[in-house]
Amino acid sequence: MTELQAFVRQILSGHKRSVARAISLVENEDPIKLPLLEALYPHTGTAYVLGITGSPGAGKSSLVDRLIQYLRRQGKQVGVLAVDPTSPYTGGALLGDRVRMVRHATDTGVYIRSMGTRGNLGGLSRSSREVIRILDACGCDVILVETVGVGQSELDVMHVADSVCVVLHPGAGDAVQAFKAGIMEIADLFVVNKSDLPGAENVVAEIEEMLDVSRKEAAWRPPVVKASSKEDRGIGEIWEAAEEHVRYLQESGLWDERRSRKAAEEVVEIARELIIRDISARLEQLAHELSCFEEVRNRQRDPYSAARQVAEQLLGRLELG
Amino acid sequence: MTELQAFVRQILSGHKRSVARAISLVENEDPIKLPLLEALYPHTGTAYVLGITGSPGAGKSSLVDRLIQYLRRQGKQVGVLAVDPTSPYTGGALLGDRVRMVRHATDTGVYIRSMGTRGNLGGLSRSSREVIRILDACGCDVILVETVGVGQSELDVMHVADSVCVVLHPGAGDAVQAFKAGIMEIADLFVVNKSDLPGAENVVAEIEEMLDVSRKEAAWRPPVVKASSKEDRGIGEIWEAAEEHVRYLQESGLWDERRSRKAAEEVVEIARELIIRDISARLEQLAHELSCFEEVRNRQRDPYSAARQVAEQLLGRLELG
Repeated sequence: MTELQAFVRQILSGHKRSVARAISLVENEDPIKLPLLEALYPHTGTAYVLGITGSPGAGKSSLVDRLIQYLRRQGKQVGVLAVDPTSPYTGGALLGDRVRMVRHATDTGVYIRSMGTRGNLGGLSRSSREVIRILDACGCDVILVETVGVGQSELDVMHVADSVCVVLHPGAGDAVQAFKAGIMEIADLFVVNKSDLPGAENVVAEIEEMLDVSRKEAAWRPPVVKASSKEDRGIGEIWEAAEEHVRYLQESGLWDERRSRKAAEEVVEIARELIIRDISARLEQLAHELSCFEEVRNRQRDPYSAARQVAEQLLGRLELG
Repeated sequence: MTELQAFVRQILSGHKRSVARAISLVENEDPIKLPLLEALYPHTGTAYVLGITGSPGAGKSSLVDRLIQYLRRQGKQVGVLAVDPTSPYTGGALLGDRVRMVRHATDTGVYIRSMGTRGNLGGLSRSSREVIRILDACGCDVILVETVGVGQSELDVMHVADSVCVVLHPGAGDAVQAFKAGIMEIADLFVVNKSDLPGAENVVAEIEEMLDVSRKEAAWRPPVVKASSKEDRGIGEIWEAAEEHVRYLQESGLWDERRSRKAAEEVVEIARELIIRDISARLEQLAHELSCFEEVRNRQRDPYSAARQVAEQLLGRLELG
């Protein structure tokens, strides 16, 4: 048995440290990344990925914590990936994660991982997909992908999910803000968290109103669930809404269609990655061979026309092939 | 005179709306981007780029505001680029920028621009460099590049600056935090802002101590300047420290060396951009031609080996050239 095979076997058996190591290797673009993902691939495809996003302060972390508890009670193995594009740190504990990690540290059925930008050379959404694949391979039935903020990077990350849950809370114009930021369009279900606070009904009404307008003709109208992570209420309802969405996807054929489309997109993306890696080396070399490079250094020539010459030279070779 | 020539002429004359339009075109990767930057290039290279970063709450925005006033009184034309990687918005007013923009709206010698991630397909640091080139071309003597936060993206953006000014303020462990986040290493000068508050001396001492350790052997030891944007104190001193740094760079030969190195890096980067753009189209096409693509869709094959086949096919052609 090769070292890679032994490593793969340990990951498949759900060995926590091996899983953590695999994730780090993938995040750091270790040369073993592609062979490893390739070896794990046949053992993936069964996990359900639920994305959880929403404005900061909506209490997403506590909600995820409650969801972990709920799913564990149902005997499910749970993976959690907390993505924070504003944090430079990757791999360790993030925000409230230290608390969560300690709480679930002895539970062999829970895998929690934080991801910031440091070390994520491949971009957050690609890294997320790769980490999800590892969590899928190690036996997770459900993978919760939680984002900290609501920027463009977070929206991108949500594309890896099968369902997206948008969490809001009673607060002035919260739903309206979410709408502006482009989150509403990607929601498959809504959770109004902190529903123990006054104003929860208003938020529900606001969302329903927006849905009346935007999802009038849609086959799937996102359910709006009231919850309170503080009082541990509504968690089962969130999960039921998510399951309902999965049923909708499967019955409509969208489940297979989406996964197949994503797989196809992935081929192109990985191929692009491989090519860019290869091209970059050649590019440096070729650039140094050409006189235009020296001319740019001396400001005798602009970098744009020089770059075009370099690119055309390299692509010209390609055309001849 | 072609349309592009007319546009370039308006930018060079400092026409505010044309400058704003040019920046938008560049940020949105409009096809005119490269020809435009190429045409502007001969008119660039004279502006001094001062990066301003530091922890949130240090009062960077107000400090930049004071610097604008100071530089305007010296008759300098000033460009400001405020970069916020956590904001999805680009082009408009950002945080306190609306106030600043209104204040300087009638001043033809000030150009202020905010940049978030939306529309910045090329990445913030590349976009920053391109925007700086436009501000340089339109006649700005000084370009202040301000970041909102302190993440990795902000550090990357700072690479476009000739000098980097790190702003701290009296607050528990602020300097230590900055050190951890990797900001200290890129600092060419330090500003302890809000020095009207108690504890300013402590921060100064903390920084000096760190410099004693980290810059012991360095030819340039970053000066530490106390300032108060509220009381408009220390602004002249900041500028003098920046000028001192420029003199150091020029006398040591680092100024030319750095700019020449950056120009060379830029050629490779732009060439890579052109190649990726070209390759991506071919890639999609080639992927669809190959049977492996359909196999991945049906899960008969993993995307990694399929991607390798696609990449090798494309690169193999390249090898033959």
